[in-house]
Amino acid sequence: MAASSELQSLDLLISKNLSDVELQEYNRIHYGRTHHHELNIKESSQESAKENGFEIASYDFPTKKEETRSPRIVRVGVIQHTIATSTDKPIVEQRQAIFEKIRKIIEAAGEEGVNVLCLQEAWNMPFAFCTREKQPWCEFAESAINGPSTQFLKDLAIKYGMVIVSPILERDEVHGDTIWNTAVVINEVGKVIGKHRKNHIPRVGDFNESTYYFEGNTGHPVFDTKYGKIAVNICYGRHHPLNWLMFGVNGAEIVFNPSATVAGLSEHLWAVEARNAAIANSYFTFAINRVGTESFPNEFTSGDGKPAHKEFGHFYGSSYCTAPDGARTPSLSRVKDGLLISQIDLNLCRQIKDKWGFTMTQRLDLYADSLNKAVKHDFVPQVVSNN
Amino acid sequence: MAASSELQSLDLLISKNLSDVELQEYNRIHYGRTHHHELNIKESSQESAKENGFEIASYDFPTKKEETRSPRIVRVGVIQHTIATSTDKPIVEQRQAIFEKIRKIIEAAGEEGVNVLCLQEAWNMPFAFCTREKQPWCEFAESAINGPSTQFLKDLAIKYGMVIVSPILERDEVHGDTIWNTAVVINEVGKVIGKHRKNHIPRVGDFNESTYYFEGNTGHPVFDTKYGKIAVNICYGRHHPLNWLMFGVNGAEIVFNPSATVAGLSEHLWAVEARNAAIANSYFTFAINRVGTESFPNEFTSGDGKPAHKEFGHFYGSSYCTAPDGARTPSLSRVKDGLLISQIDLNLCRQIKDKWGFTMTQRLDLYADSLNKAVKHDFVPQVVSNN
Repeated sequence: MAASSELQSLDLLISKNLSDVELQEYNRIHYGRTHHHELNIKESSQESAKENGFEIASYDFPTKKEETRSPRIVRVGVIQHTIATSTDKPIVEQRQAIFEKIRKIIEAAGEEGVNVLCLQEAWNMPFAFCTREKQPWCEFAESAINGPSTQFLKDLAIKYGMVIVSPILERDEVHGDTIWNTAVVINEVGKVIGKHRKNHIPRVGDFNESTYYFEGNTGHPVFDTKYGKIAVNICYGRHHPLNWLMFGVNGAEIVFNPSATVAGLSEHLWAVEARNAAIANSYFTFAINRVGTESFPNEFTSGDGKPAHKEFGHFYGSSYCTAPDGARTPSLSRVKDGLLISQIDLNLCRQIKDKWGFTMTQRLDLYADSLNKAVKHDFVPQVVSNN
Repeated sequence: MAASSELQSLDLLISKNLSDVELQEYNRIHYGRTHHHELNIKESSQESAKENGFEIASYDFPTKKEETRSPRIVRVGVIQHTIATSTDKPIVEQRQAIFEKIRKIIEAAGEEGVNVLCLQEAWNMPFAFCTREKQPWCEFAESAINGPSTQFLKDLAIKYGMVIVSPILERDEVHGDTIWNTAVVINEVGKVIGKHRKNHIPRVGDFNESTYYFEGNTGHPVFDTKYGKIAVNICYGRHHPLNWLMFGVNGAEIVFNPSATVAGLSEHLWAVEARNAAIANSYFTFAINRVGTESFPNEFTSGDGKPAHKEFGHFYGSSYCTAPDGARTPSLSRVKDGLLISQIDLNLCRQIKDKWGFTMTQRLDLYADSLNKAVKHDFVPQVVSNN
């Protein structure tokens, strides 16, 4: 389906068809607040968005003042985008074209005062893992510390004093030239403070990623940045509640979910999973998905009986943010590049823990014990017979 | 807010305002299928529903035929309802009034061929735990094996050859006359095959249940009934992904979530949590919530600064079913008694496990190890510093 025939956004469809009163009730029941708190966007940013063909949206999450802690207000941005040129071009050219596009959006984020920014999964390349071809796609893999994408983003991180999370295809030269699906965390002075490797790898539809890389071996790190404790649950990890949980156990206040996922397969799950994670773990989540249909030089199949094809998509965008109380923003467009900004107070995480008490009542010791038994080869499930 | 001023249903609001084409697109993106597959309901059942003031809705989940397993088609019903008389009446009278109301709805379920039925949390009483008064409310507690509610339901289970899950306030006379929040499972020949006690107890808003009973000590049993492997995640346990997970690990194909929860507190979470659990664990879930506003004889407070009050509500109903592929039914009404029936093929659970591979990719051993460390007093979270 061509982008032009795709629905732009479910949120727009709803809001244009309901009366103001109905929309408030819809928002209350569905989004957790009667109104989205839109923030002003600078005219210069709006102009850049128009000129460069991306959407820009900004929301506030007002939070109660506390007596003993100052507010910890942070502006968090996420970017969704299409690739920037055709996939048969030299890979350096493909990457450079994305750099040029992304530079404009990051500049707008910088102008809007974004403190922490996360890009989509494998943001600097087409999502070529559908093809199962090793060449030329493996050549997109680069060092987490000083590869071209890290170099490119370091400059912008320094310029805007911004923490940037950069999900890339990583080449680990120290360990056998292995390839990983990795999020690199660059701090506000341009230093790579660490990385996280995707914990759960799909084998479904055109998602043939397990051909290229293994399950991550970096645990569930939380990065204690200048602007709060952040973590990254890469793509398919959003289907795994335990992955979300461990980032929470390690103290995350913001968890990004940079993704690449397509309509038909996952779209009806999209609004559910990252939002559930925010609720269950009393932290902010940002679900980020790429946009557009990507076409590859050679046809491929995926073991699902479909005829050989060259297109992978439609990646439906729809990036959104959920607060720990379950309130969320509308989604970005299903078809267009976009920058979503949320102004949040990290104090809300503990306020919600105090209110709902999910960490108090979660009985981790019970589950540590249960899982220990469950992973044993001689595990006997707790089943009550019909007698 | 009086029931009459409450919105009847978000689904109705949407469907009446969108064109057919728009509604299909909404359904595809939101519900996972362009059309809800409505099943015919017998005229006699429709008449009973009309006469007795309850809604009845029935949906199909068509599932692929397999070569080596026969379909395992099951009709699953859930009931949501208001209490049936005022809370200052003698408790036996209150309970009997609910019996009479519920009998009619169960009869309709029986006529519609329901094989497995689940009632709402503490279905046979008002949700009086807000009051923190021990008398008279503790007198609603009864034996799981042969209390009046079990006796009442046994006869109906036998009459219709139906498995009935009965969430009640349980009195355990063997163990110090303790009280528990318990789901009793009665099989198709009227035998109590087991019970499950609520694992996670809230301390939020008017939910003062921890005044009455402790966290459950029955683990995560799965009941291997004539009509499939079922489990019960009672109410607040739906906020805990690990609770859902362990029922899946033990082999559940259907997990009920009998609840009592109110607008303002949880309504924007309601459509997210039980649905996420179905997706994450590749089983069917049924979220069941009571209906109406309940008024109590004596005023009470709940430590949230609100003036003393006598009303607990609005319980917003909205019961719904989600399949393991994430497709779901519309919700029952927000304001009215209702019977929701889903015709499902249990084979879909394994089909989705094969397709999405969440059980293959979930790395339980990693999390068993991580949680073991996390529960230790000297646990050091995995935090990367900004240096």
